[in-house]
Amino acid sequence: MKGAVLCGPRDVRFEDQPDPRIEQATDAIIRMSATCVCGSDLWPYRGVQPITGPTPMGHEYCGIVEEVGSAVRSVKPGQFVIGSFATSDSTCPNCKYGYQSSCVHREFMTRAQAPMLRVPLADGTLVPTPGVPSDDDLLASLLTASDVLGTGWFAADAANVKPGSTVVVVGDGAVGLLGVLSARQMGAERIIAMSRHVKRQKLAREFGATDIVSERGDEGVARIKEMTRGIGADSVLECVGTQESMMQAIRATRPGGYVGYVGVPHGVELSGEQLFFAHVHLHGGPAPVRRYLPELIDLVLNGKIDPGKVFDLTLPLDQVAEGYRAMDERRAIKAFLRP
Amino acid sequence: MKGAVLCGPRDVRFEDQPDPRIEQATDAIIRMSATCVCGSDLWPYRGVQPITGPTPMGHEYCGIVEEVGSAVRSVKPGQFVIGSFATSDSTCPNCKYGYQSSCVHREFMTRAQAPMLRVPLADGTLVPTPGVPSDDDLLASLLTASDVLGTGWFAADAANVKPGSTVVVVGDGAVGLLGVLSARQMGAERIIAMSRHVKRQKLAREFGATDIVSERGDEGVARIKEMTRGIGADSVLECVGTQESMMQAIRATRPGGYVGYVGVPHGVELSGEQLFFAHVHLHGGPAPVRRYLPELIDLVLNGKIDPGKVFDLTLPLDQVAEGYRAMDERRAIKAFLRP
Repeated sequence: MKGAVLCGPRDVRFEDQPDPRIEQATDAIIRMSATCVCGSDLWPYRGVQPITGPTPMGHEYCGIVEEVGSAVRSVKPGQFVIGSFATSDSTCPNCKYGYQSSCVHREFMTRAQAPMLRVPLADGTLVPTPGVPSDDDLLASLLTASDVLGTGWFAADAANVKPGSTVVVVGDGAVGLLGVLSARQMGAERIIAMSRHVKRQKLAREFGATDIVSERGDEGVARIKEMTRGIGADSVLECVGTQESMMQAIRATRPGGYVGYVGVPHGVELSGEQLFFAHVHLHGGPAPVRRYLPELIDLVLNGKIDPGKVFDLTLPLDQVAEGYRAMDERRAIKAFLRP
Repeated sequence: MKGAVLCGPRDVRFEDQPDPRIEQATDAIIRMSATCVCGSDLWPYRGVQPITGPTPMGHEYCGIVEEVGSAVRSVKPGQFVIGSFATSDSTCPNCKYGYQSSCVHREFMTRAQAPMLRVPLADGTLVPTPGVPSDDDLLASLLTASDVLGTGWFAADAANVKPGSTVVVVGDGAVGLLGVLSARQMGAERIIAMSRHVKRQKLAREFGATDIVSERGDEGVARIKEMTRGIGADSVLECVGTQESMMQAIRATRPGGYVGYVGVPHGVELSGEQLFFAHVHLHGGPAPVRRYLPELIDLVLNGKIDPGKVFDLTLPLDQVAEGYRAMDERRAIKAFLRP
């Protein structure tokens, strides 16, 4: 089969890879219904995160189970399944506490931008849906649960969003936009999206943003303070991962408020003293998507949310390189790929 | 009057200072019943935190109200009162959220190692007790509520200690020891105190520690992991403020667990990436002692807790310099000072 391989900065190729096969009794092989390009894929794509050689790409996936290992019990061939970008055994203490993305047997998925995929720890990682999705919109929304929606949801959860909360979302990528959607689902009263990109502002409003702030840095923080009685927001979702965005998030939060951070940090250093006097709660990390999957799938299947709207570019899988280019140049929010 | 003044590294003098007087209508003047030396006083004492000139010292206090400004309503002359090391108006949004130590009118107290003290924002800062404490043990325990107990309590609260929790306390100073006491009060099942100092280990056990770990750094973390099914503790209280202690705390916490940090950070830098993959909750800062004061005073007056045991050296106030020396050399856990 062919799949996406990153060969160097801005050099994604769709090329031959070995067909996946059952390697462990706990594996499943799925035939991809849809996959996509993640904002976090742009770090190595841009050369910010070095790679050591040609690297198969992709970690968001859903599809039909083709084959399962002899120990797999909870999914079977023919089922439509969605899995987390991080595998989990569902039995270790971290999984039991709901932190499946820190499972002691965790592997971060890769190779999902391909027509077939091996999923380790299938019982603990995959969630089957009642049926096979009937249309592309539904498929797109279900695919988001694999990472981007689950990550936005975790950002809101980690930021302690509650009914009535005032929420700020830093980052207008797909995760940030779905952070807006998640905050709305959790009952936030006011949701301030920080964005200076008209198309993304529009989608943020569709997802539930009540206010848009286009200022950044000191000015952005000052604007948030003005809007929040001078003290900052209850909950701030950090969905970028740079020093600037992290400090913007911390400084936009009121003392005693919560920062949920899900942008994979690159070069971020936090001053202990600054954090101490900021007086905020800080929580984040790789989203425990597996914890949220059943609930998110239900919300999608019941038509309560339509997270698939973050896909504004659909491409055949063999044009995956164009998906990266469009996202890198911010021409597209997120690229949906059909094998 | 005379009071403690830090004139340079390890140079504390008991010397003439102006008598405090009402400066604002919201002030109170109190006659000190007892004060003490704080672990955080040792940072400037050791020259780690620079001072710009002779600096009056002390921020833990309790005593009898001598005089109040014309706007003060909730305390009156003759009452015994305890106040937080941070003043608060009790009316601003941060105070309403329970973060009085980030009050928009906050001042950090100083000049409390003296026989008389001006307390700004008396209504919001001071809590009167039903009577005047009848003996020195009670006085000592009440004094701790002003900072050291309230700070240990906040560490446990910020670390989300709940009935049944497994808790680690990093730091065997007075705050750490009272963190042990606080975790016990909050129902922790297992409390592991990290200490290599026999006398402090003993007091930790009296306060409720179930285990002592004397290893530090990598070895200390490995030991905690061994004791916690390989994953780390639910709640870790960081009560020191160095890079080493902070990293020890973060690494001893399980994914999804909580670090409560109250040691004033000195030179601490946290890697965003390390924090992200540690997957912990982080909360701390200057303890909102005022929030806890009524409850802590009740616990002391009802004989439920005896935090005054952290004082293992009693001195007349004019020998305050010896209090600093004894704590600096770790001969004393905490010095109690009587005017």
